[in-house]
Amino acid sequence: MAYDRNNVFARILRGEIPAHKVYEDAQTLAFMDVMPQADGHTLVIPKAEAENLFEVPPDALTATILTTQRVARAVQKAFDAPGILIAQLNGAPAGQSVFHIHFHVVPRHEGFDLRLHARDMADPAVLAAHAARVKAALD
Amino acid sequence: MAYDRNNVFARILRGEIPAHKVYEDAQTLAFMDVMPQADGHTLVIPKAEAENLFEVPPDALTATILTTQRVARAVQKAFDAPGILIAQLNGAPAGQSVFHIHFHVVPRHEGFDLRLHARDMADPAVLAAHAARVKAALD
Repeated sequence: MAYDRNNVFARILRGEIPAHKVYEDAQTLAFMDVMPQADGHTLVIPKAEAENLFEVPPDALTATILTTQRVARAVQKAFDAPGILIAQLNGAPAGQSVFHIHFHVVPRHEGFDLRLHARDMADPAVLAAHAARVKAALD
Repeated sequence: MAYDRNNVFARILRGEIPAHKVYEDAQTLAFMDVMPQADGHTLVIPKAEAENLFEVPPDALTATILTTQRVARAVQKAFDAPGILIAQLNGAPAGQSVFHIHFHVVPRHEGFDLRLHARDMADPAVLAAHAARVKAALD
């Protein structure tokens, strides 16, 4: 399948739609998931056009995992999370719903089940506050 | 928490216990999960001693994600999987049960639920056959 340049993350990268950004560099961008499975749920993407893990160029992939590591440390700190789940879904049968490769960074606390993904839109004010917490915790 | 040199993956790396290996290079190792959540469930680890994403050195992390990409392509091909889930769990509250960082590569097919992790030991002969399929599909 050819990369769809109108997917939501491509549009965020082009500045056509807003996002609660927490980190950006030449190759990567991190922002809050608007339908978080837990408070602090953040996404990390490469700027390179790539639908999934199979298509992403090696340099974009390594840049993305390094940003994921950096963001995961910040999310852990900002949300005092004893656990952090990293998930990267390829293909609709794996749960991928936006066809630009992304890594989920999800805080996990003992006894708290994850909310269902892509069901409920979070309050933008809450997301903005969460983004500020992650940004403040970045090294 | 200090890295536990007696965790199962450290022992596999030292050759003290066997594994159904599918790929190995200077920095990384990939082998079948003995309690697979789906047929073809493979794990990718760095050889560096690191408990989780927070502690793994950058070069070991980038090597591991590149091996994960390579192995994911092979698993997709070998198991004709329309979806591939990549998961990396940090801390017991996130589901981590072996405290050496690892990336799960799990084939996903529409309508098949994942089996519960770390419950049922797979038949070693089946795992050996699955490892051979993945190895044969590696580029």
